[in-house]
Amino acid sequence: MCTAHYPGAPPGCNNGSGFLRDRKPRHTKDGCMTQEALSPELEAVVARAAAAAAPLAATTAEHRARALVKIADALEANKAKLVEIALRETGLTEARLSGEVTRTAVQLRLFADTIVDGGYLDARIDHADPDFALGARPDIRRTHIPVGPVINFSASNFPFAFSVMGGDSAAILAAGCPLIVKAHSSHADLSDATAEVAATAITEAGLPEGTFQLIHGREAGVEVLKDPRIKAGSFTGSIRVGRLLADIAANRPAPIPFFGELGSVNPVFVTLDAIAERADEIASGYLTSVSGSAGQLCTKPGFVFIPAGSSLPETVAAKSGDAPEHRLLDPRIASSYDERRTAVLGTAGARAVIEGGIRFDDDGQGWATPTIVAISLDDFRAGREALLEESFGPLSILVEVPEGTDLAALMPEFYEGNLSGTIHLSEAEATGTTENAEQLRALVAALANQVGRVLFNGWSTGVAVTPAQQHGGPWPATTNDSSTSVGTAAITRFLRPVAFQNAPAALLPEALRDDNPLGIRQQLAPAGESQSWGARWR
Amino acid sequence: MCTAHYPGAPPGCNNGSGFLRDRKPRHTKDGCMTQEALSPELEAVVARAAAAAAPLAATTAEHRARALVKIADALEANKAKLVEIALRETGLTEARLSGEVTRTAVQLRLFADTIVDGGYLDARIDHADPDFALGARPDIRRTHIPVGPVINFSASNFPFAFSVMGGDSAAILAAGCPLIVKAHSSHADLSDATAEVAATAITEAGLPEGTFQLIHGREAGVEVLKDPRIKAGSFTGSIRVGRLLADIAANRPAPIPFFGELGSVNPVFVTLDAIAERADEIASGYLTSVSGSAGQLCTKPGFVFIPAGSSLPETVAAKSGDAPEHRLLDPRIASSYDERRTAVLGTAGARAVIEGGIRFDDDGQGWATPTIVAISLDDFRAGREALLEESFGPLSILVEVPEGTDLAALMPEFYEGNLSGTIHLSEAEATGTTENAEQLRALVAALANQVGRVLFNGWSTGVAVTPAQQHGGPWPATTNDSSTSVGTAAITRFLRPVAFQNAPAALLPEALRDDNPLGIRQQLAPAGESQSWGARWR
Repeated sequence: MCTAHYPGAPPGCNNGSGFLRDRKPRHTKDGCMTQEALSPELEAVVARAAAAAAPLAATTAEHRARALVKIADALEANKAKLVEIALRETGLTEARLSGEVTRTAVQLRLFADTIVDGGYLDARIDHADPDFALGARPDIRRTHIPVGPVINFSASNFPFAFSVMGGDSAAILAAGCPLIVKAHSSHADLSDATAEVAATAITEAGLPEGTFQLIHGREAGVEVLKDPRIKAGSFTGSIRVGRLLADIAANRPAPIPFFGELGSVNPVFVTLDAIAERADEIASGYLTSVSGSAGQLCTKPGFVFIPAGSSLPETVAAKSGDAPEHRLLDPRIASSYDERRTAVLGTAGARAVIEGGIRFDDDGQGWATPTIVAISLDDFRAGREALLEESFGPLSILVEVPEGTDLAALMPEFYEGNLSGTIHLSEAEATGTTENAEQLRALVAALANQVGRVLFNGWSTGVAVTPAQQHGGPWPATTNDSSTSVGTAAITRFLRPVAFQNAPAALLPEALRDDNPLGIRQQLAPAGESQSWGARWR
Repeated sequence: MCTAHYPGAPPGCNNGSGFLRDRKPRHTKDGCMTQEALSPELEAVVARAAAAAAPLAATTAEHRARALVKIADALEANKAKLVEIALRETGLTEARLSGEVTRTAVQLRLFADTIVDGGYLDARIDHADPDFALGARPDIRRTHIPVGPVINFSASNFPFAFSVMGGDSAAILAAGCPLIVKAHSSHADLSDATAEVAATAITEAGLPEGTFQLIHGREAGVEVLKDPRIKAGSFTGSIRVGRLLADIAANRPAPIPFFGELGSVNPVFVTLDAIAERADEIASGYLTSVSGSAGQLCTKPGFVFIPAGSSLPETVAAKSGDAPEHRLLDPRIASSYDERRTAVLGTAGARAVIEGGIRFDDDGQGWATPTIVAISLDDFRAGREALLEESFGPLSILVEVPEGTDLAALMPEFYEGNLSGTIHLSEAEATGTTENAEQLRALVAALANQVGRVLFNGWSTGVAVTPAQQHGGPWPATTNDSSTSVGTAAITRFLRPVAFQNAPAALLPEALRDDNPLGIRQQLAPAGESQSWGARWR
């Protein structure tokens, strides 16, 4: 099952972060500790990543930026070849795959600018202060350093943007951490081809050997995740597998952070006035969002709460012919979707607004058209056990809510953490001055309390790669809701703060020097300041 | 064992963040889920904290700032009374306890300024961009919101600064999270008295009922940590207990972040030239740092690597009379220290530089004078199993290192993560131009790789409460090395990012509005920018 790509130096003794002080160290006679015996191939992979950590951390931001741009350019230069493999392995459309390569390249280039900008280092300088409120304070300066080797488990549904050189990988390399990618088995050939393109660019850019490696096989991924030389993990996939890996990371002798982006059903709320204003636009946007990529997106709107008696189901039904048949990613996903669809349609009170369907071809691949179901809030409550689970495919449920229902209360009643939550409101309601303004504010607060991104008058699929993006949310949307897996803030996952006290200028990281050779933002706390802390608020 | 203080409203049904979608929900017939049955008293405590979450999150930063300053003022106004109780319960000196109250008040006031400054919100605004590199981009704005109710397990060794209203509590309240403190049993009366002072100030400041509550008993703390309404935990204490609690937090049906500050031995490296320049100053500083608070500090320098044959041990020995006898915190800590001291002194090759000792009074309290041990690097290697464990008390070990030893390699050989690491060097060495400059740079990098704070020519005890402070470090110094438990950055532990997409101004948080009514720092990504991402690095 396990094949390590780009193996190199023979396996050697590398005891990583040293002996465990609070547990019996497991070490061999010559004093070398290893967690558990890795296969020689995996041992070589991890040893190379560990050996790359110090030289990679010592590279300049500009050096890494040039490497990221080189990878981006190389992916685009090889787009035709890569998309061809992806077409065969994923069943996604050429337009989608081609756009995804562009997105992947843009992500890499954005991180190039991000690390040279240096704001992500959150550099802070406290000047020495003889008058400090608690007695003389030394000079203290704080920045962030890479955590060390990281394993990234790639996703099935974004064969480029969340795979070998996707957003997580870009963030890991940008941070200066050696990267081991565990390929997703559903696009193994594409993973190899992408890795080859990236590895060549990385070598040409002069980054250390061991900066980037690809492995295959779930067991191999787990073994690497357990290795004490690995300092963090990232993952995009199902709640089940994400939880399994998060538990492994948390229960290691030396636990490490694990950033899993898992499941989400992305509740949507539509007001009566919004429907009155633009039912057709809402219905079209909804169907496009549900059927795009055959609904195999973690941001697909799974549930839409609409006023009972509204015309929206009919408007949606009228568009039933708009979405073409689409192949699902693989036979396992297809049969699981088939089951979920049958269970949802069989729930008491559920009626098909658009029946849709799924058929299987001779290769066992499933081809689906969208299914839209409507159900009353009461029947939804009664059928929750069957209905609430994520349907990974082009299915979504309209929940018809009686007038006077407390919308904000529906979020905690039905949902745990989600990646996104959406409100469609009218122009008048957007001013915050309508009669229902307080209810809308409560709904916004309820959504913010349980999701990572609150949208207005839009659809949650399509996640812009930008500085302010937040792609995360409370469990089970992620395993770690303090971070994002899309946007520039994603880099913070792979960094660790370090302070330097009374360090001579010659031994300080450049980010913290008074002459600021990197020209980055430095937050200063000048002497004398502490005497007045809090004084204004008395 | 469990007594909940300030219980209030009768226990009610509060299903927190909603049903677990991926597990069988455990709920009663009326649809109300609870994790496990809490005792009525604890149920009331958690229900009150959960009910306070929304109103507390909705308070302004100025409101919370006034409350923090009010708590600080109240603690100082009650200093005499509180210190009197602390003297009896902890055995710490009046000077130390009185200074600790001041420190605690300063921490609270610093957080008052921090939240009004608003930089901690990391507000980001991406303007809508029709020319975005991946197609039109919506308006996206990101800020941070409080995570919800937090339980803080307080420490034994800082009865004020890391206890009921210590740094963690200040950060939790500043962030806008309801706070439940689990009192440390070794100063239960002081905890009650402090809580009373704080609760009165909080009520007077008009923060919601349920903002702050105190509980007693380890079992009660564990039950609360397991409750689904609790969104994060913090802790200062031993590796053993910290790990136990971190595992509970990670293995909940809905895992939550747990920020434990655990054990550390704080290695120190002293060069021959530094000793030649200021042996006396180094010896004095060392003894003061080891013996202060009877060595019961997580930043005590536990190991000092010095050149073999140097005069430092003799200089230290000459000061043996300088440190007075000091009571240890409680009989359990005293007997455990007694055991550790005997084991260290009994290790082959260990010689007492200052023998020191411990005696027990009629109440079973232990009274100690500092013990300084010297040992050669070879004997240290051979005796590592006995020597490396933390000695919580006034004991420290000088390791005599032969010339030519690779100092940077000693860190990974002997240590895991630590809170701090220190280098003492000469004036000439500080310029980075001496013959050993490369070795020193490697040592700095090795320390940065394994500790949260790297010090030069100082001692790690005494942790300034400032914006640039970093009190953390890789496992087992902490359970989560991406954060600090001292300094303003500590607030980030209790916040979660949320993005708003195309939100009408009327429904946006103030931090993200274009007119910036809070006057905080907003990071802008203007339209058009993405076209040139990465272009400079080609």
